[in-house]
Amino acid sequence: MKFNIKKITLILVLSFAGSQVFAQKTNNLKYISAQSLTISGKGISTTNTYDRVDTAKYKGLPPRVAQLLTNSAGLAIRFTTNSTVISAKWCVTRSRPSTVVMPVTQKGVDLYIKNGNQWQFAGIGKATVNNGCNEEIIISRMDNSEKECLLYLPLFDAVTGVEIGIDRKAEIKAAAEPFAKKVLIYGSSIVHGTGASRPGMAYPARLSRLTGINFINLGVTGSAKMEPEVADMIAQIDADAYILDCVPNTNPDLIKERTAYLVNTIRKKQPGKPIIVMQSVVRESGYWDKVLGQQVKNQNINIQQEVLALLQKDVKDLYFITSENMLGTDHEGTVDGVHPSDLGYDRMVRYLQPLITEVLSKYDIKAQ
Amino acid sequence: MKFNIKKITLILVLSFAGSQVFAQKTNNLKYISAQSLTISGKGISTTNTYDRVDTAKYKGLPPRVAQLLTNSAGLAIRFTTNSTVISAKWCVTRSRPSTVVMPVTQKGVDLYIKNGNQWQFAGIGKATVNNGCNEEIIISRMDNSEKECLLYLPLFDAVTGVEIGIDRKAEIKAAAEPFAKKVLIYGSSIVHGTGASRPGMAYPARLSRLTGINFINLGVTGSAKMEPEVADMIAQIDADAYILDCVPNTNPDLIKERTAYLVNTIRKKQPGKPIIVMQSVVRESGYWDKVLGQQVKNQNINIQQEVLALLQKDVKDLYFITSENMLGTDHEGTVDGVHPSDLGYDRMVRYLQPLITEVLSKYDIKAQ
Repeated sequence: MKFNIKKITLILVLSFAGSQVFAQKTNNLKYISAQSLTISGKGISTTNTYDRVDTAKYKGLPPRVAQLLTNSAGLAIRFTTNSTVISAKWCVTRSRPSTVVMPVTQKGVDLYIKNGNQWQFAGIGKATVNNGCNEEIIISRMDNSEKECLLYLPLFDAVTGVEIGIDRKAEIKAAAEPFAKKVLIYGSSIVHGTGASRPGMAYPARLSRLTGINFINLGVTGSAKMEPEVADMIAQIDADAYILDCVPNTNPDLIKERTAYLVNTIRKKQPGKPIIVMQSVVRESGYWDKVLGQQVKNQNINIQQEVLALLQKDVKDLYFITSENMLGTDHEGTVDGVHPSDLGYDRMVRYLQPLITEVLSKYDIKAQ
Repeated sequence: MKFNIKKITLILVLSFAGSQVFAQKTNNLKYISAQSLTISGKGISTTNTYDRVDTAKYKGLPPRVAQLLTNSAGLAIRFTTNSTVISAKWCVTRSRPSTVVMPVTQKGVDLYIKNGNQWQFAGIGKATVNNGCNEEIIISRMDNSEKECLLYLPLFDAVTGVEIGIDRKAEIKAAAEPFAKKVLIYGSSIVHGTGASRPGMAYPARLSRLTGINFINLGVTGSAKMEPEVADMIAQIDADAYILDCVPNTNPDLIKERTAYLVNTIRKKQPGKPIIVMQSVVRESGYWDKVLGQQVKNQNINIQQEVLALLQKDVKDLYFITSENMLGTDHEGTVDGVHPSDLGYDRMVRYLQPLITEVLSKYDIKAQ
């Protein structure tokens, strides 16, 4: 009871502090709900705009997977504006700050603006309020030419409500989804974006900006275990291609037990669509930790054997990507021995991009 | 009063929780105080081992600079051991978690082990206790060959007490400072390591591992403003070379006002030692924020003019490094438009290393 009272007091204090900040900063801005703009990076439409999947529609999902699919990973607000300032308000939950994820990656936002043919980084919004609503000016003092914008939402929190703030006299419009087709990437924290320094640096987002193809982030940190119920869900999401980067959270036995069901289920429900299976990135700590090192080797051997067996059984449109040196050779590409940093992701993206686009181009999956 | 009681309760709870954790994990380990090992990366010996400078010895330092010099940035514990496990206990202060610095970078530790001629990353210790003592197993299940180790301490906290944990039957020894000479780098958050994913990824640490030369981190985040008192302090620290990467925290006027005094003071006190002045990295947000963009341009123009003027006045052993494209050309190298991520630091290090070592080699400053 005492705890509850404290909690209520805390929420009231936070709400009050939040309003104060809002009042100070919004004097010269008007705010538009992101609901009236375009949401980029969605695999499927959902009841709650900022969920990735309506998990209630799929029976038997592991509760943690269902919860993680409410994280807004990979989603971005797409709009055009001639405002000289771009601000954002966004509300996050009471989930605790992580001891390993960058605060901006977990609960913050980042903005890209089109410069010629390139999506170019412009600024971040830090989450100073952990449980409640944040308001941050992302970039200001720009010229007033019309700009195409993409604001990435938090990777590791469920977002309730996003508004974009602009100059009172400026205009803002919804704009078309900038990325073509849909390539769903199912995987672990490495897909989700744990080691990225901000939401737009997760590797599916980087691949989208580099290729113009819409890579959908279906990363579920720590929980990409290829459960049959998850396989059923993935197979029901219509996409143009499927990338399975789900080795890291499993173990060698689970890979033998579950890979065939996952691939065959997607294959049956989505005939003719390419399925690309990836080995796990090497775990840098595994160089020294001999047990961990051997486990990752066994995982990667087993996934390769599973895919070879499926190909021998004549499963069509199935591809495999090995992971040697995907993070470079200097062992400096991870934040913790497991999760790539922006440096590791950069190396990963440069390694993956030609391999993935080569497969996708066979199916006419390319930028508009 | 109510607040104070809560605070005391919280501290007691944390202390108790801390003891529990220690008791659980230390069963099979013995701990050795880092005081009996070697501290790498020190510019000067200090009363408190984990301070960077005894600031009480230097009069009139800005209080924030003095406080930041108690952060253990750039310091690392150097030892050899044949233990199959390496663990650490380290105590941090009540400073609040940052909204932009990675938690491991702020209050955590990371370990490198020598592999042939290369220092190779092995693991991290997350700070799960913000105000008190942490204990974390950094790496385990290694073979029992003798290994040379380097454990980097938190970049953004003052550390009180560090112990290294090893197998009960294993040995641990102090080892010589692995890096030769002393090259002091004075600068802002970019030297200090704000955007690094862990302590060992700050750029002075990366330069040390890559070159074998001892680059001393004298980064004071947000506070590298070339005050005369700070100039006096730097000039009194005996080093083999001085790198001044202190443009980012200043403004164009301060650069005109203070650069000559800083350079001349070091020159007078440390004749014959090279002084390398660096331009500021470009601020990626400044591409869009026209005021910020112009300010950084003006800072970089002014620092170049100041150095040219000093050279024209025949100041000896003075060098200058410009910063174009130091972070690459894709605008993806920062965490927030200002601070390099591991990716930006990697590009910066590859750009700086040949320029800096070329100067240092003229003075016979090189690896042992």
